[in-house]
Amino acid sequence: MDYDVFELGDFVLQSGMRIPDARLAYVTLGTLNADKSNAILYPTWYSGQHTDNLWLIGEGMALDPTRYFIIIPNMFGNGLSSSPSNTPPPYDRARFPNVTVYDNVLAQHRLVTERFGITRLALVTGWSMGAQQTFQWAATFPDMVERIAPFCGTAKTWPHNYVFLEAVKAAIRTDAAWKNGWYTEQPWKGLRAVGRVYAGWGLSQMFYREETWRELGYASLEDFLVGFWEGFFLRKDANNLLAMAWTWQHGDISANPTYNGDFDRALGSIKARAMILPGEKDLYFTPEDGEYEAKRIPNAEFRPIRSNYGHFAGGGINPVDTKFIDDAIKELLAQ
Amino acid sequence: MDYDVFELGDFVLQSGMRIPDARLAYVTLGTLNADKSNAILYPTWYSGQHTDNLWLIGEGMALDPTRYFIIIPNMFGNGLSSSPSNTPPPYDRARFPNVTVYDNVLAQHRLVTERFGITRLALVTGWSMGAQQTFQWAATFPDMVERIAPFCGTAKTWPHNYVFLEAVKAAIRTDAAWKNGWYTEQPWKGLRAVGRVYAGWGLSQMFYREETWRELGYASLEDFLVGFWEGFFLRKDANNLLAMAWTWQHGDISANPTYNGDFDRALGSIKARAMILPGEKDLYFTPEDGEYEAKRIPNAEFRPIRSNYGHFAGGGINPVDTKFIDDAIKELLAQ
Repeated sequence: MDYDVFELGDFVLQSGMRIPDARLAYVTLGTLNADKSNAILYPTWYSGQHTDNLWLIGEGMALDPTRYFIIIPNMFGNGLSSSPSNTPPPYDRARFPNVTVYDNVLAQHRLVTERFGITRLALVTGWSMGAQQTFQWAATFPDMVERIAPFCGTAKTWPHNYVFLEAVKAAIRTDAAWKNGWYTEQPWKGLRAVGRVYAGWGLSQMFYREETWRELGYASLEDFLVGFWEGFFLRKDANNLLAMAWTWQHGDISANPTYNGDFDRALGSIKARAMILPGEKDLYFTPEDGEYEAKRIPNAEFRPIRSNYGHFAGGGINPVDTKFIDDAIKELLAQ
Repeated sequence: MDYDVFELGDFVLQSGMRIPDARLAYVTLGTLNADKSNAILYPTWYSGQHTDNLWLIGEGMALDPTRYFIIIPNMFGNGLSSSPSNTPPPYDRARFPNVTVYDNVLAQHRLVTERFGITRLALVTGWSMGAQQTFQWAATFPDMVERIAPFCGTAKTWPHNYVFLEAVKAAIRTDAAWKNGWYTEQPWKGLRAVGRVYAGWGLSQMFYREETWRELGYASLEDFLVGFWEGFFLRKDANNLLAMAWTWQHGDISANPTYNGDFDRALGSIKARAMILPGEKDLYFTPEDGEYEAKRIPNAEFRPIRSNYGHFAGGGINPVDTKFIDDAIKELLAQ
C-alpha cells in the first residue's frame, strides 16, 4: 500500500534532541468533506504500520471511508516515519533520539492542520500505543478532539507495564549480535526471544488454557510460539523496537509543559466524549489502570472487551472482538 | 547451614535416563517422636535451597521444630541435590537428564521411608514448585499423607505458566556466553535478563503500582530490578535453572503410570485434608487454576492469600503474608 510523507523539517523533541528532515509517513482513506467535519485520526501501535490498522476500516463499519476521512499516521520508530532504521547518520540506529508520545502528537498535529487545514477531529482512536496517542491528543488539544475511542491502552504507562517492557528490552540486549545497536544484520536470536517474552503477556492465561490459538489456525502451542510470536518479531528492526519501547515506557499525557506531570488534571481537562475500551484480561494495559483514568475523564464510558485475547483483543485477529470494538465506536460516533 | 545427603545410587528417571550415584540433599529440624507421627515434609522451590525455606519455621509457628520433625529435601537441579552443576561427566551440565516432579517425589519417598522409617506424614507443604511436589505426594501416596498445604502452586503446570517459562529459558539461551550449556563461566547477561523477565511475573501489577518494593527497602524501581531481581538470578547456575524449568514445565500429578494423564482422577484420589493457598494476584500459578483443582480434591479448602505480592506472597519476604500462611497451616494441623 502506497503511503505519503509529510516533511517536518528539523523536528526538535522534548528530549532536546532533534530528528533532522523528520518524516511523518501516513495514509488517508475516504474524502474530506467541505466543512472538514468528517476527519478521523487513527495512529499506529508498537511496531505496527498503517497497513496493520486496516482491519478496523471498511464500508459499513464505524470507520467507513465512504463517510469519513481517515488519516493513519505512522508512529516515529515504526520503520516508515523517521526511525533508527531509516534516519541517516549521525542520528541513525543506536543514536536515534528519544521520542515521546507527546512528540508524536505534535508532529501529527502539524500534519492535520498544515496539510489538511483540519481544526476539528470527529474521532481519534487507536490500539495500545495508538490508544496512548489518542489520550495524548485529547489532553493536548482538548478543543480539537470531539471523541476518543482508545482500546487496550492507557493515558500513561503504569509501572508494571514499564517492568514488562524491561523484559522486551533485555531479550534484545542479551543477544551479542545486537552489538549495542550497531549491528549489520538483525539480532535474530534476540528478536525470537522477544517473541517468547511477549507470548505470555500479549494474551491471557485463559487464552492458553482454552487453547484459543486453535482459532488462529495453529496446530500446537509450539507452532503458535514459533509461527505467530517469533514470526511477528523477526519482521521488525531491533533498534526500532528499542526506540518505541522508550516512547512507550515514558508515555504520560501530563509529561509536558501543559500539565507539568499533574496526571489527574490532564485527565480532567479532556473534553472529548470518551469510549474507553480496555481488554478485560489485558495483562499490561490493565482494566484496573484504565478504570482509574476513566473515572477522572469528565465524559467517559468505560466498557471492557470481554475476551480471552488479553491485550490482543484490540489486535484485529478475531471477529468477535473486532465487532465489539466496531459497535462501540459506531455508538460513539452516533452521539 | 550443614546438610545431609541421602545416597540414592543409580536413580532411573521417568525419561528412561538415569542419575548415577544420585544425591538427595536434605536437612531436618526437630525430633522424630516415638510413634513417628510428627513428621512434616517441606520441599524446596525453583532454584531455592533448604535455607530458603527456613522463614516459615520457628518456635510458636505452625512448623514448630519443638513439636514436629521437619524434613526439607532439596529438589533435583537446585545445586545441592544432583544437578547439572554438580554431577560428574558424562551426565553433567547440558547432558543432565530431564527430571520430573514425580521423580523428585519418588526419591523423597525413599528418604522418608528408608532413612527414617516414616509411614505417615502429618503434613506436606511448600511454595511454588514445592507446592507442585506437595500435590504430587498427596496423589502418589494418598494413604501416607494426612494433610497438605500447597501455597502459590498448582497440581499441574497450566499452559500459560508453561509459556511464561519459555521467556525465562529464552533469556538464558539468547546469551552467546551460554554456549548451549557448555559454558565455563556463568552467562551473566542471560541471568540478568532472567531477572528482568521474572520481575513482571513474580509480583503483581498492584505491587508495582503502589511501589510496594519500598517495603523491601529499595530506593527506586530500578534499584529493585537490579538489587532484587538481577541479584536473585546472578546467584544461580544457568543449566540448573534450565533443568528445573523443564521439571516445572512438565509438572502434572497425573503424568505417571498410576493415573496415565487422567488429571481429574488424580485430584480426586487425594485423601489428605488440603488447605490450598494461592496468591490472589499470582500471575502464573493463578487462583483460577488453583480453584479448578481445589474443587476436585475431596477434602479441600481454598483460601487465597490477599496480597499485592503476587506469586511472592509465598516467598517469605513480608510478615503479613507469612502470618497468613502460618495461621492457615496452624488451623490445618489442629484438625
